[in-house]
Amino acid sequence: MEIGRRGLMLVLSSPSGAGKTTISRKLLAIERERMVLSVSVTTRPRRPGEVEGRDYYFIDKAKFAAMVANGELLEHASVFGHSYGTPRAAVEKALAQGRDVLFDIDWQGTQQLRERARSDLVSIFVLPPDMAELERRLRERAQDSETVVQGRMAKANDEMSHWAEYDYIVVNRDLEASVDQVRAILTAERLKRDRQIGLGDFVRGLMRKQ
Amino acid sequence: MEIGRRGLMLVLSSPSGAGKTTISRKLLAIERERMVLSVSVTTRPRRPGEVEGRDYYFIDKAKFAAMVANGELLEHASVFGHSYGTPRAAVEKALAQGRDVLFDIDWQGTQQLRERARSDLVSIFVLPPDMAELERRLRERAQDSETVVQGRMAKANDEMSHWAEYDYIVVNRDLEASVDQVRAILTAERLKRDRQIGLGDFVRGLMRKQ
Repeated sequence: MEIGRRGLMLVLSSPSGAGKTTISRKLLAIERERMVLSVSVTTRPRRPGEVEGRDYYFIDKAKFAAMVANGELLEHASVFGHSYGTPRAAVEKALAQGRDVLFDIDWQGTQQLRERARSDLVSIFVLPPDMAELERRLRERAQDSETVVQGRMAKANDEMSHWAEYDYIVVNRDLEASVDQVRAILTAERLKRDRQIGLGDFVRGLMRKQ
Repeated sequence: MEIGRRGLMLVLSSPSGAGKTTISRKLLAIERERMVLSVSVTTRPRRPGEVEGRDYYFIDKAKFAAMVANGELLEHASVFGHSYGTPRAAVEKALAQGRDVLFDIDWQGTQQLRERARSDLVSIFVLPPDMAELERRLRERAQDSETVVQGRMAKANDEMSHWAEYDYIVVNRDLEASVDQVRAILTAERLKRDRQIGLGDFVRGLMRKQ
């Protein structure tokens, strides 16, 4: 009797600049066979270096509104006047194949997913060890005015204020250690009794064989 | 602001011969600084190779009865006419020091601990990949009559019938892989939000520093 398992939905949230995206990429590189990234749709313009279909699907407001109306988004939220959402079809396909899905989304999206996914959702909040490094990264990334940087810092604070809604907390003091911690969480969650399929038959098989 | 954590109680149960004791020893060797083994008291005679205070504290029936009467045991159970129990004091001392405690106990003890420990208890059931290997190990160990071996196999079946009461299931196909899986569970459980102490102050400290 083979033991299978149900795919799970792993959410990584953090204030922008705390290292979440780097952790996600490293995790996906290791877990390529068993995990896919949920790529969000967004109405915000593409930034330099971003790749269509890897970072986001960049769509216009009319298309976004149509996806919401047709129930094609698992969750959606608005940040700084732009809309973001998670396409439902890709997630459902991966889970049906027994693969896990990684979500790189904020607290608003996580709250909506939590309502829909229930026990299939595992959520991790990544905290920065301090704010100096986070502010440095935001400034480096921004190439923007002080007002924009301050807005991003306010958004980081808003995001951090939701840490207590998450199952696990990782303080990203060291990138490799944080990746190891996220991998341990994934390994453990896959070993949970109620995520393994066919255990009852497996044990009954063992007991019959005497 | 330092982030601390509460010690947790990690239970490993399995049918005798499935490798649980070997996994426990390897885990303890790695986690020496952060985890202690709960050594049970028992009224059964010491077997060749067993060491007082490492494998068990070997005590007589009168002493055992006194410990039960004085509330000195966290749990106790009877197997094949012998009594087994977990001394409370050592466990409480370790947890108060922020260390984890490992329990190598059966389903009866686990049920009792679960009632007392609530969210501090993490339980793992170790299954053998098949029964042939388990029976071979029981015969090797036994140096005993066929009747005794059959009794042990019946006890193994009884133990296995309780797999569904555990949080995590590890099928011990490969010893090193199983140790890694148990370590991942331990790492993940330590990262759970409600096991980390001082996170709220830590995040408030981050948010003030801007």
